[in-house]
Amino acid sequence: MSLNKSYLMTPGPTPVPADILLSMARPIIHHRTAEFEDTVREVRAGLQYVFNTENDILLFASSGTGAMESSIVNCFCVGDQVIIARNGKFGDREKQIADTYGLKVIDLQYAWDEVVQVSDIARELEANPEVRGVIVTQSETSTGVLNPVKEIAALVKDRPDTIIIIDSITGIGAVECETDDWGLDVVMTGSQKGLMLPPGLAAVSVSEKAWRAVERSTIPKFYFDWKKYQSNIEKNTTPFTPALTLIQGLNEALKMMRAEGREDMIARHSLLAEATRQGVEALGLKLFAPPEGRGSAVTPVWAPEGFSAGDIVKIMKEDYGVTITNGQDDYKNRIFRIGHLGYFGMFDIITTLTALEMALTKLGYDFEQGASIKAAESVFLGA
Amino acid sequence: MSLNKSYLMTPGPTPVPADILLSMARPIIHHRTAEFEDTVREVRAGLQYVFNTENDILLFASSGTGAMESSIVNCFCVGDQVIIARNGKFGDREKQIADTYGLKVIDLQYAWDEVVQVSDIARELEANPEVRGVIVTQSETSTGVLNPVKEIAALVKDRPDTIIIIDSITGIGAVECETDDWGLDVVMTGSQKGLMLPPGLAAVSVSEKAWRAVERSTIPKFYFDWKKYQSNIEKNTTPFTPALTLIQGLNEALKMMRAEGREDMIARHSLLAEATRQGVEALGLKLFAPPEGRGSAVTPVWAPEGFSAGDIVKIMKEDYGVTITNGQDDYKNRIFRIGHLGYFGMFDIITTLTALEMALTKLGYDFEQGASIKAAESVFLGA
Repeated sequence: MSLNKSYLMTPGPTPVPADILLSMARPIIHHRTAEFEDTVREVRAGLQYVFNTENDILLFASSGTGAMESSIVNCFCVGDQVIIARNGKFGDREKQIADTYGLKVIDLQYAWDEVVQVSDIARELEANPEVRGVIVTQSETSTGVLNPVKEIAALVKDRPDTIIIIDSITGIGAVECETDDWGLDVVMTGSQKGLMLPPGLAAVSVSEKAWRAVERSTIPKFYFDWKKYQSNIEKNTTPFTPALTLIQGLNEALKMMRAEGREDMIARHSLLAEATRQGVEALGLKLFAPPEGRGSAVTPVWAPEGFSAGDIVKIMKEDYGVTITNGQDDYKNRIFRIGHLGYFGMFDIITTLTALEMALTKLGYDFEQGASIKAAESVFLGA
Repeated sequence: MSLNKSYLMTPGPTPVPADILLSMARPIIHHRTAEFEDTVREVRAGLQYVFNTENDILLFASSGTGAMESSIVNCFCVGDQVIIARNGKFGDREKQIADTYGLKVIDLQYAWDEVVQVSDIARELEANPEVRGVIVTQSETSTGVLNPVKEIAALVKDRPDTIIIIDSITGIGAVECETDDWGLDVVMTGSQKGLMLPPGLAAVSVSEKAWRAVERSTIPKFYFDWKKYQSNIEKNTTPFTPALTLIQGLNEALKMMRAEGREDMIARHSLLAEATRQGVEALGLKLFAPPEGRGSAVTPVWAPEGFSAGDIVKIMKEDYGVTITNGQDDYKNRIFRIGHLGYFGMFDIITTLTALEMALTKLGYDFEQGASIKAAESVFLGA
């Protein structure tokens, strides 16, 4: 067709609502002003609402990886023992960062289609009483797999010298994350995910226990020195030039998220994920994530036997304007991933399933046309 | 669902692409400047491309009705005979305007689900040699019915004192309109239709023959006096303050239309209309427009026996955020209308059909879920 609209169905960057785009298009103000301080105050309160926490929240002009690195360099010393439980590309990255800074990593590595086992962490904590941190990815962007963060946190809660660090970069906004109730010491997210913003901003919540860890940390840091950010919280500003328009946009995003309501927002993501899963299964396709670890941010799907996920992704993009993503690393061309994290509604799922049906038809895969829509409609009508 | 996006599937106003919105959000310039004159020059050339004409094109800060009225007051004198062939709400409006200004109307009235008959016009032209004008709506917004403008124009072409006036307000951009080849003397459109703009701007093309009619017209007019606009064409401006941002937006829209190409744009609309028709028929619904008069701008559909079109429209809007329109006048609650005129792609049709399926399910109508998507997919895949 001579006019194809673009649909961004990836786990980040995600679509930005028009009201947020417009809020970022206002003339630039200076950041050392009462006006901007008001914005920062509102943004912190809004993030505390979304993170379910009364902990301090720090904002960085950085990508999510910057926030990950900041948690390592602020909470530990060279030689500290940490447990890293990893089952995907971003868990791998946590290990790379920990290795870079000389931590002693107790490495719990899982296949990408497995969830992290709580019992393994319990065992390692028992065997290694000196462990200073447990680091887990809540929602793996590379696979959509959801790890049992609440249960893992329960193991750490009563250990005064051990903190739990959660990469919830593709989790916050899409899946339950009860920072205070579950006792999560450090939780981080990036702007281009559930917060519905362009990339360039990261947020990290820090508990009292984590601040005590920060006090003993001796790893050198400057830009990501959490204490510099902490001392600016009361002044409602940031130690270095903030990503001004992104923070303005974040304020608008947080108003939208409050208007929708935290629980309704999580329920919406569950419903979108369920419709996606029922839709692809109705086409005879197989889900990648195990039943006990299916998150609501991304749905990874095996390409049918004899078909390349890359071909499916390519036809959906080039012929229909619908961008989904290929698998990563070992799963490249074997799985494709449909993102539904952030500003998504039911017809984004319908659009994606239809484009998938048309791509599969073009590739010669045999299935019943319309079946995925029928399945998704049933999910939406049953909600 | 707690977040519903909005989908505007009406025959006007129609969705405005982001690039056009942005072009209208630039700081205001003055209209008596070389910069704005350049824009007007480009816009006139672009409109000539879209209208398929070398005729003059006049721009009014008005709705489409203003353009309709302007054609009556500029081309005729009180007491002039005109044939008005009407089969919908906007044909009726042409008659109201002609009556208002004291024209003698030869009234060819048809049912809303009939097309205008060329033979009736031929007969009236023969019987009334003094007829000064034939006025026809090309694409009836109220019903989507397409009238045989080319064939009617052929009857008028060789009559030196008779002009043909075409209301193509919902036609231009969506259906074939060969202004010069078919010999259309006056053709008009409005901005909030195929031109993909907000409302507030109208364009009228005027042939040499029409200008001769203007010369003898004695009806008083000021704001809509075509000669005032004509004398400003060479200066690339307008006699009164132009709708500045809409003209900037129009320039952007015309660039998009040229990039897509006139023929491809018309073909896209045909395909969207065909997918819509096949989709609703697959649900067992009946099309309102007769096979010989199905346009590509709007698809009118009978509500199933025992169901109210108003209920369907209401559920689609309130529960799913998809705005289609009810029938008008006698057809209110009996038909609903799906607009696909302007900035529409295949997934807008898929979204609308899915919302229609879900609304029909809620109302208890019996059909095979997913059938409309299967039918629409086949149309798109066959293109």
